[in-house]
Amino acid sequence: MTEENSTRGAYIGKGKGFTRDSHYIETRITADGRDGYPVEPGRYRLVVARACPWANRSIIVRRLLGLEDVLSMGICGPTHDARSWTFDLDPGGVDPVLKIPRLRDAFLARFPGYPRGITVPALVDIPTGQVVTNDYSQITLDLSTEWKQYHREGAPDLYPTDLRAEIDEVAELVFRDVNNGVYRCGFAGSQESYDEAYDRLFARLDWLTERLASQRYLVGETITEADVRLFTTLVRFDPVYHGHFKCNRRKLTEMHVLWDYARDLFQTPGFGDTIDFAQIKEHYYVVHTDVNPTQIVPKGPDLANWLEPHGRELLGGKPFGDGTPPPPPRPEEVVPVEHWALGG
Amino acid sequence: MTEENSTRGAYIGKGKGFTRDSHYIETRITADGRDGYPVEPGRYRLVVARACPWANRSIIVRRLLGLEDVLSMGICGPTHDARSWTFDLDPGGVDPVLKIPRLRDAFLARFPGYPRGITVPALVDIPTGQVVTNDYSQITLDLSTEWKQYHREGAPDLYPTDLRAEIDEVAELVFRDVNNGVYRCGFAGSQESYDEAYDRLFARLDWLTERLASQRYLVGETITEADVRLFTTLVRFDPVYHGHFKCNRRKLTEMHVLWDYARDLFQTPGFGDTIDFAQIKEHYYVVHTDVNPTQIVPKGPDLANWLEPHGRELLGGKPFGDGTPPPPPRPEEVVPVEHWALGG
Repeated sequence: MTEENSTRGAYIGKGKGFTRDSHYIETRITADGRDGYPVEPGRYRLVVARACPWANRSIIVRRLLGLEDVLSMGICGPTHDARSWTFDLDPGGVDPVLKIPRLRDAFLARFPGYPRGITVPALVDIPTGQVVTNDYSQITLDLSTEWKQYHREGAPDLYPTDLRAEIDEVAELVFRDVNNGVYRCGFAGSQESYDEAYDRLFARLDWLTERLASQRYLVGETITEADVRLFTTLVRFDPVYHGHFKCNRRKLTEMHVLWDYARDLFQTPGFGDTIDFAQIKEHYYVVHTDVNPTQIVPKGPDLANWLEPHGRELLGGKPFGDGTPPPPPRPEEVVPVEHWALGG
Repeated sequence: MTEENSTRGAYIGKGKGFTRDSHYIETRITADGRDGYPVEPGRYRLVVARACPWANRSIIVRRLLGLEDVLSMGICGPTHDARSWTFDLDPGGVDPVLKIPRLRDAFLARFPGYPRGITVPALVDIPTGQVVTNDYSQITLDLSTEWKQYHREGAPDLYPTDLRAEIDEVAELVFRDVNNGVYRCGFAGSQESYDEAYDRLFARLDWLTERLASQRYLVGETITEADVRLFTTLVRFDPVYHGHFKCNRRKLTEMHVLWDYARDLFQTPGFGDTIDFAQIKEHYYVVHTDVNPTQIVPKGPDLANWLEPHGRELLGGKPFGDGTPPPPPRPEEVVPVEHWALGG
């Protein structure tokens, strides 16, 4: 995703709370193809930016489910201009499959004059070059439920039928107060709206701490969509949200239950191996000139401690249930080690 | 102090490292009065802002030495305008003794057209209303050495003759890399100058950690001027420098030796009772619009932990040597408890 106002070059409305534009392209890729886009190996391209927490969800889910062979991935660079995420990491600045320099081109191919933000994650129909959807919360659920016949052997069920109500309920609270809550802190247009967002954020983190003190995962005994959604915010907490968005009651490293929980996930194949701390930091500190006009990127924090033992096995639970962890990322999708050996 | 460029309304020169203007008014108040300003009870007013680390030194030293009865104190508010620190905390916005609204007036009274920054701490000659000096590093040394006949019974010797060379040496390194080093991080005009300042800062903090791991105070067995100078930066580290100035390899609370050392001093009468966390945070986050254009002040960090036990007594040392701690601050100089029960 990128934030509502980014295409207009301003995130903060003076005196206002931050409101996220929640209108996305709702077309779905489904097994039955009822929206005209049936699940089909090799037909679609998942466009992401590793920096973006909303896109990070789909990178993780694709990895956990082993969809790499049927759904290729295009990776935008960490900084975008006022109009679009761009393929500036690719040779010649052009996505090798879609042959476009800007994600915006895929949006315009389907909707000339598309007026909303150009956001990641986006699924693009390769034959037509048209975006299908950028509805980030539906995308991961559909990867779990609609793409089932292409899941790898041993893939976890991230959205099990009997737990969906609870996953949805937790995810909704986490979205409001945490995933989006950190943005409401960082892009608050007044002291009052910041203070209110801060209180809600940390009250929810206290609630999560209580929940996770005695159970290894958020819902049930295995990792689910709910964990994926919380993880992508927690992993950005100390490198970005704590300082840049003023979410600074405590660092994640000082909230011991959440810190152990986050490290447990980070060390689970499919989570930590999707994280590019260098791109994460560059994105926020360079793009948000409303908040960081100097665009200087902090050297800290020291991130080596993400690999320290977490001790959460003692709580029981099995990350993949009766399944297995995914194999290592494919070589072209490995995050360079120097991108997270930072800050020391 | 305020920073070099503040009277021009900009702290950061694009592409440049931060350079502090180190030209102060060097007139001294001495026992022998050789500069025309003899030490004299009731004659001078120490003008400070609790927010400012350079002024904080003189507030602490005045308290430790028990000079309150002979040297009164005027307190400017935490935010200053482009031209001057102001007495906005006082009834009518006027200092009750000097009868001026702005510290600048005392500078102009002595030097019409004074071209440099209007900085705290400043010593003002009450009869003439003229500033005598704003040379912050000489001010504390002179309080220790020139005002000796007015020190309270049991006052510590903060600048003992036999330790001066070592105190000066440590203080110089701490000034360059830490006291001023945090500003060099925060006001860096390029990524390169920031990176260089960050590396020097944390290398020096590592050096200090090693030094303080086995000895309670920086020089000798008792508190000295060297401790005062390091303390005023450490106490601002997590509330301000870590986030606002991007000094974020670790929080102070994560650097255990320095955190214990800082708490030990904080809990020593004359140190913590001079600290106004609310004013500190307001100063930096509101004044430095180059760095924080929204002027929103973070609610965190949680500061209650400053009162936790530090365990440094086990290292030996006696804070006041053969002397005694100062009595509590006078009622009109007590920092309201709600100014540091923050961030929770």
